[in-house]
Amino acid sequence: MAVRFGLLGAGRIGKVHAKAVTGDASAKLVAVADAMPAAAQAIADQYGCDVRTIDAILAAKDIDAVVICTPTDTHADLIERFVKAGKAVFCEKPIDLSLARVKQCLEVVRAHKGTLMVGFNRRFDPHFKAVRAEIDKGAIGKVEMVTITSRDPGAPPVDYIKRSGGIFRDMTIHDFDMARFLLGEEVTEVVATAAVLVDPEIGKAGDFDSVQVMLKTATGKQAMISNSRRATYGYDQRIEVHGSNGMVAAENQRPVSIEIASSLGYTRPPLHDFFMTRYTEAYAAEIATFIAALSGKGKAEPSGEDGLIALALADAAVKSVAEKRVVMVSEVL
Amino acid sequence: MAVRFGLLGAGRIGKVHAKAVTGDASAKLVAVADAMPAAAQAIADQYGCDVRTIDAILAAKDIDAVVICTPTDTHADLIERFVKAGKAVFCEKPIDLSLARVKQCLEVVRAHKGTLMVGFNRRFDPHFKAVRAEIDKGAIGKVEMVTITSRDPGAPPVDYIKRSGGIFRDMTIHDFDMARFLLGEEVTEVVATAAVLVDPEIGKAGDFDSVQVMLKTATGKQAMISNSRRATYGYDQRIEVHGSNGMVAAENQRPVSIEIASSLGYTRPPLHDFFMTRYTEAYAAEIATFIAALSGKGKAEPSGEDGLIALALADAAVKSVAEKRVVMVSEVL
Amino acid sequence: MAVRFGLLGAGRIGKVHAKAVTGDASAKLVAVADAMPAAAQAIADQYGCDVRTIDAILAAKDIDAVVICTPTDTHADLIERFVKAGKAVFCEKPIDLSLARVKQCLEVVRAHKGTLMVGFNRRFDPHFKAVRAEIDKGAIGKVEMVTITSRDPGAPPVDYIKRSGGIFRDMTIHDFDMARFLLGEEVTEVVATAAVLVDPEIGKAGDFDSVQVMLKTATGKQAMISNSRRATYGYDQRIEVHGSNGMVAAENQRPVSIEIASSLGYTRPPLHDFFMTRYTEAYAAEIATFIAALSGKGKAEPSGEDGLIALALADAAVKSVAEKRVVMVSEVL
Amino acid sequence: MAVRFGLLGAGRIGKVHAKAVTGDASAKLVAVADAMPAAAQAIADQYGCDVRTIDAILAAKDIDAVVICTPTDTHADLIERFVKAGKAVFCEKPIDLSLARVKQCLEVVRAHKGTLMVGFNRRFDPHFKAVRAEIDKGAIGKVEMVTITSRDPGAPPVDYIKRSGGIFRDMTIHDFDMARFLLGEEVTEVVATAAVLVDPEIGKAGDFDSVQVMLKTATGKQAMISNSRRATYGYDQRIEVHGSNGMVAAENQRPVSIEIASSLGYTRPPLHDFFMTRYTEAYAAEIATFIAALSGKGKAEPSGEDGLIALALADAAVKSVAEKRVVMVSEVL
Repeated sequence: MAVRFGLLGAGRIGKVHAKAVTGDASAKLVAVADAMPAAAQAIADQYGCDVRTIDAILAAKDIDAVVICTPTDTHADLIERFVKAGKAVFCEKPIDLSLARVKQCLEVVRAHKGTLMVGFNRRFDPHFKAVRAEIDKGAIGKVEMVTITSRDPGAPPVDYIKRSGGIFRDMTIHDFDMARFLLGEEVTEVVATAAVLVDPEIGKAGDFDSVQVMLKTATGKQAMISNSRRATYGYDQRIEVHGSNGMVAAENQRPVSIEIASSLGYTRPPLHDFFMTRYTEAYAAEIATFIAALSGKGKAEPSGEDGLIALALADAAVKSVAEKRVVMVSEVL
Repeated sequence: MAVRFGLLGAGRIGKVHAKAVTGDASAKLVAVADAMPAAAQAIADQYGCDVRTIDAILAAKDIDAVVICTPTDTHADLIERFVKAGKAVFCEKPIDLSLARVKQCLEVVRAHKGTLMVGFNRRFDPHFKAVRAEIDKGAIGKVEMVTITSRDPGAPPVDYIKRSGGIFRDMTIHDFDMARFLLGEEVTEVVATAAVLVDPEIGKAGDFDSVQVMLKTATGKQAMISNSRRATYGYDQRIEVHGSNGMVAAENQRPVSIEIASSLGYTRPPLHDFFMTRYTEAYAAEIATFIAALSGKGKAEPSGEDGLIALALADAAVKSVAEKRVVMVSEVL
Repeated sequence: MAVRFGLLGAGRIGKVHAKAVTGDASAKLVAVADAMPAAAQAIADQYGCDVRTIDAILAAKDIDAVVICTPTDTHADLIERFVKAGKAVFCEKPIDLSLARVKQCLEVVRAHKGTLMVGFNRRFDPHFKAVRAEIDKGAIGKVEMVTITSRDPGAPPVDYIKRSGGIFRDMTIHDFDMARFLLGEEVTEVVATAAVLVDPEIGKAGDFDSVQVMLKTATGKQAMISNSRRATYGYDQRIEVHGSNGMVAAENQRPVSIEIASSLGYTRPPLHDFFMTRYTEAYAAEIATFIAALSGKGKAEPSGEDGLIALALADAAVKSVAEKRVVMVSEVL
Repeated sequence: MAVRFGLLGAGRIGKVHAKAVTGDASAKLVAVADAMPAAAQAIADQYGCDVRTIDAILAAKDIDAVVICTPTDTHADLIERFVKAGKAVFCEKPIDLSLARVKQCLEVVRAHKGTLMVGFNRRFDPHFKAVRAEIDKGAIGKVEMVTITSRDPGAPPVDYIKRSGGIFRDMTIHDFDMARFLLGEEVTEVVATAAVLVDPEIGKAGDFDSVQVMLKTATGKQAMISNSRRATYGYDQRIEVHGSNGMVAAENQRPVSIEIASSLGYTRPPLHDFFMTRYTEAYAAEIATFIAALSGKGKAEPSGEDGLIALALADAAVKSVAEKRVVMVSEVL
């Protein structure tokens, strides 16, 4: 039987998930809720579902699972309420910007034996997934060093920056999760450097826009992350894993694969300029994984615990920059 | 108002078009017909449309347009019947394997001022389309030489080969259309060489599996086509256009863009192994173009005339191989 | 003992060979001759060899071999004279522009059991050589279709064109030799199309600047060649061989391998803009092969026969364009 | 007038420099010295120069400059002696493994207004040089983040490791110099992580084989370095510079640029497997730069000071690993 869904939040990312749910034959979008009635109505019109309040969805007998796409500061509360109501929860990252609050929330999930999957969509990118699959197949031997380059096409508005929890919790957090996904072992040490090079306003807001992080595991596996809030050539998303028998890397993606040659040289178009076009397939695949897990096929992963650890790595990075030293993850988690 | 569709043929390509029609907000799939009731029913079940007979669809007041995906030898008849009934027609290529029959059919279309679009899907591939867009922008100056490499992952069954009209009419025809699309000028001369290298059974069936074609226009623009029925590395689909100021090329496509390095070298995965995965976006885009044209936006192209000319080039190639000489298109058209 | 060399012709290509000879520990440049004394003296000064007349070199006891880099119309005579004098000869291509004259010359070489190697330098390009090595290793199975793209950065002066024997004998001849080198089987059929698109003056001189050729062997192996006298993006030199088990291709070469990304896209620099920088290694390697052959290691190939056959393919292409038909090589050879 | 050279050390790298000196028309190799007479004699035989003792070269009136390729522990002494004797010195890196000793040596060079160039050959690699040229041209705007990947094909013998000064002083030192070359600004902070993953014997020798480093300048420019002593796919040497307007990167180099496609995918050969083949052009170009500088064209750079600073960064990295913190360069220099 199809998994019956409620969608909380009808904004940009809510629309993406609405499309993913309705496009999956094993799922059905029953209702959508949003503080902005027009936004909810637009989704309802397009997919033929109800508009309901969050409370009504919470109480609904015809809803098995929810996708939470509301503002970050509502995530933890909603997770707790819906888990208590017996509904499976898919929540956009992050669970919360406070590690303490996340721990508390996961406590509730555990206590109610709830299902919570967190939206680290990049694990579902077909290219990154293929990198992991090669590692699992043994194509490169034992993983030794992971290199992640992750640069946004452009910095978000400073208003967003202020609410974001800072670059490590907002942007690098995806790379922390990816590093864990690829290292296959828990990170124990974090050290970061950070600067404001893109926009001085970001610095005034107390944040950085250009950061580097090094991670290390107990057995000596290492990872490097390079982040910038602005890459003129598009959304730069590369991963590379060096192992005892070789290396595997995922290349950048662009909308069209053409090349123009002239007296100026050989030019390929810029990369995707937006995370939604870059990760279209990943968004669909993560929801499909969640639906499949609810139908007993596979796991609802990344889990709340994965969300917790990625946030802890971000907190360690923040501390590392402040104290100019290597921070043990055990200091913050 | 949405364009209301009937789908004739519920086979492999019928399913692709059913998905494209139902995925387009400006269209509605009303009914499907197929000689195999189960096939029609499967589509009806998935998309909530009717199963009807072809005659019922022909007579239906609630259907504006049809997509013809039935066997090739029914195409011309169906086009004529539906055009006479005032329905817009999208027909899979080819209209017919006989040039005379195609001409006759197009006569009927013209006489009834019918709308006929032919399914040369490759024009809608985003990468090939981008190549054409660069030409139109003037990025390479005047077009001079077009090179098309088109190789199938593997040869079709000999039974298919026998009904196919031969490699030039079945396979190269796509490249003839692409060459015209890129040359921007009518081809006047055709010369081809052909061999049987892949499978002797293909030779016994009177066909070739490895062919080369050169085309020329009145002003001296030239094109080369290289076809093989078997490429072990996947579905090899490349185009390259050389012009007075530069060159533009579309690269091959693969399911995932990763690279594995080891002592054996740097390896990227094989290409797509199937035309349906390779041209997924193209199939959706051609139907979207048809729907848009019916709504008054843009043209329903490639037209029946485009189908006719591509077939004429194929006929000229057949003649060229037989007579070991350059054949003027005017000799066959 | 070192092979002692005389160099006939101290022009552009003479200098390249002087460098190759003096850079090889198994050879010694003894003397250089040139109609322009200053040119010969410059080489003599740089490498510490004598300036002598051609007759003196012919008579010299301290010279074992000559490299002929004089104008084309002197090649056949010089080959004959030096072979009769018992000297080994390396001659720049072509032996002559007339097939009859070449045959006569080779007759003399055979009669005197002379050693004659012809300068089809591209066989010695490390990348093209590696392509051939993969074929020989069986990496792609049986060779089926060869594709050669060969475009000059810019057209030579019309004066040169007039003396060149035409594009097929001057430019495509390299590709004819390469096709033979890669097909591993004699070409039996040639068909070509040709146009003047780059420079009308070339057309007035009775030549073409944009040509396409298809070749076929007795067993059905095929090759395609695409030539243009002008590629704005540099010296475009690609080969690709499709076989029963795969494909092998040599990529274009550029002076530096960098890539610049910006809002305009990802740009790599243009290709080499000159055959001498593109084929630097090939020129040195062909002379090294000649020297080694004279010392009993390997063969002095490509031979005079190779030169003859490449010219015959060029003649067949000329005839094909004139008669708009497939020409059997046996018609011209 | 040609610069007259003495070569100190006729080992592997001595041979490379002998070739570079003799291949440069503005220089002349007068004499070579080596503790192993046979090694010196071999070079003397090949290039027609004298074999002399170091003392004789020191005293020679017919020698203007020396290239020092002797064991590392003799470098500083030889630099001092030859500078005092008024000879220009090109010295292989490092000047010494002790920062104090290097400072002392540079004091002597300064006191005698000597010319000292240090062999950081990678600055002269055409690809890396082109990256720097693009930065200088403003192609990427202001430099923000540098990423250097530098991996050896295989670990050297443990005996070498023991004498090497450790991975940061032996291997990463090249990357420290490259980072400075590209950042265009002095590094003020260093932090490193390190592990033994390739060979436990390296760990027993007190060294690491897999390290990561982050650098930062006073204005917030950052760099990352990733090193491994073993890459199965060859000598991995990549640099990438991210700036305010774009990015520029140098690609890896391989002996031949071919690609083989089969059912296993598309494979390019492994990279160069040896620093000498990878950096052939760089070795020749650095000596040419030294020769030119002695003739008044350009500077003899990288200087002794460049050698000093790169070593200081290595010392800071060693300290950082030991103390698990960011080390200010001012702490060690």
